[in-house]
Amino acid sequence: MKLRDIGEIELIKRLTKGVRLDKSVVKGIGDDTAVIKLTQNEYLLFTCDMLVEDTHFKLTKATPFQIGWKALGRNLSDIAAMGGVPRHAVVSIGVNPNIPVSFLEGIYKGIKALANKFKVNIVGGDTSRASKLVIDISLIGEVKKANLVTRGGARKGDVIFVTGALGGSIKGRHLNFMPRVETAGRLVKDFKINSMIDISDGLILDLWRILDSSRASARIYESTIPVSKDASSFEEAVTQGEDFELLFTMNTKEAKRFMKTALAKMDVPVTLIGEIMGRGYGYRLVNKDGKETRLEAKGYLHF
Amino acid sequence: MKLRDIGEIELIKRLTKGVRLDKSVVKGIGDDTAVIKLTQNEYLLFTCDMLVEDTHFKLTKATPFQIGWKALGRNLSDIAAMGGVPRHAVVSIGVNPNIPVSFLEGIYKGIKALANKFKVNIVGGDTSRASKLVIDISLIGEVKKANLVTRGGARKGDVIFVTGALGGSIKGRHLNFMPRVETAGRLVKDFKINSMIDISDGLILDLWRILDSSRASARIYESTIPVSKDASSFEEAVTQGEDFELLFTMNTKEAKRFMKTALAKMDVPVTLIGEIMGRGYGYRLVNKDGKETRLEAKGYLHF
Repeated sequence: MKLRDIGEIELIKRLTKGVRLDKSVVKGIGDDTAVIKLTQNEYLLFTCDMLVEDTHFKLTKATPFQIGWKALGRNLSDIAAMGGVPRHAVVSIGVNPNIPVSFLEGIYKGIKALANKFKVNIVGGDTSRASKLVIDISLIGEVKKANLVTRGGARKGDVIFVTGALGGSIKGRHLNFMPRVETAGRLVKDFKINSMIDISDGLILDLWRILDSSRASARIYESTIPVSKDASSFEEAVTQGEDFELLFTMNTKEAKRFMKTALAKMDVPVTLIGEIMGRGYGYRLVNKDGKETRLEAKGYLHF
Repeated sequence: MKLRDIGEIELIKRLTKGVRLDKSVVKGIGDDTAVIKLTQNEYLLFTCDMLVEDTHFKLTKATPFQIGWKALGRNLSDIAAMGGVPRHAVVSIGVNPNIPVSFLEGIYKGIKALANKFKVNIVGGDTSRASKLVIDISLIGEVKKANLVTRGGARKGDVIFVTGALGGSIKGRHLNFMPRVETAGRLVKDFKINSMIDISDGLILDLWRILDSSRASARIYESTIPVSKDASSFEEAVTQGEDFELLFTMNTKEAKRFMKTALAKMDVPVTLIGEIMGRGYGYRLVNKDGKETRLEAKGYLHF
């Protein structure tokens, strides 16, 4: 059996069966980051993200600065989705020895630009020979226990919100997106967010991940889902990957307070796109003429 | 200018110039792991290590189990060299979609075997498409402030020790070595170790790294350096990479106490191979007939 036959979700289940986890691990595999108990009220977040030439970027279409930016940005987006503050990163790079030094310096400039913006320390790394460029950054963050948001907390009646506009990221936004660290920070500081994820594999798949973790259903509305001007179609907007926007839910009361007091003052547009339903409802899209379509986990998967 | 023209040491200096480091960072780039302040008496260790097909292993010569073992083993060896206890790992894998699922399961079996032995939690990961296999593991460890050992603490008069026997790792040991976590744990618990490193790029280069960080000199003796039966020559034994043995120094008094009370009871052979000299002395090898050769940083470098 080949990887492409079983898909990424089944693969991860198989590989991680029986991994060791002691009681210091609050969340292991299966959320945007791992969560580890530090003290009574403080958790450590830990995540990694690999960027591979020709899979995540083409050398002909991305500048070194953009590659470095994207490599750290993806990790920052994961820390943001947990409600956390990014702190320390290590950077592994595999690279062809014939590459110009200035190219690698460019990658590091991109990494350092984002690191400086979000006060992340670059504390270590590893360089290796490789035929194609590969960058893997691991990032440690911190979060107060009270601010931690996972995929698993969505409850029946929750309102679903999304930041920014979706789709068409491949036209360039995937190389220079701003990770929503500040937005997430404001949200968890002032509101009770029940569940959150960053959209890396398309709205439909990533909302499915929230539903799967929360054992819940959902209804979303085509008429309200914000589609980027870069997207060629609605379907593209909800199934393409690499938006790096936040998808989150709050209960009705919190959502009303948010819309009344904060929504207009957020640093990015935030849009209400649907609601969490009870377990038996399923996963449905209400299209523009009011007809309902059943949705499945569908979006960008690597295998 | 190409990477191969400037070498790995100069490359790392260039790339990491001006990286952000705040006061929570006790040691950034330039030791076996980063060291981050957790509490008054507890430090966090953080390291990453990338393993690339055809650079670190050949698919025709290594089993999947061995590849996984080596990937985590290298990180464990780094945590050991700081005197630390390994705790949590995240695993990024880039892989061809045509690879059999059983192959990846084999890699994870190797990772899990070592993780279980050293009580490491596998808390997260990332899988990507890639043309050649690449594995990057990041590992978090913990160390009491009093037990932390860096490369920078060697002092004039220190005695230099090495564990195991060196050289010829390429014949197979590099795929099934036992990281010296337990050995290092005993050492830092009972003795004041002034400096330590794991030998990943050959004794001569890695001892040079201790001297460089400690601003010290050293004299080592060909007659006492333990050469593995797998090594074809003395030169090979001290310049080939991937021994993953510990190289460490203690002051004379501590060294005498160690040799009298503990050396014979260690879980691996430990050998006295030389001494740390004052700054002006240089870096010298005393060969078997008593002649001295000046040494330079020389060993396995990636570019």
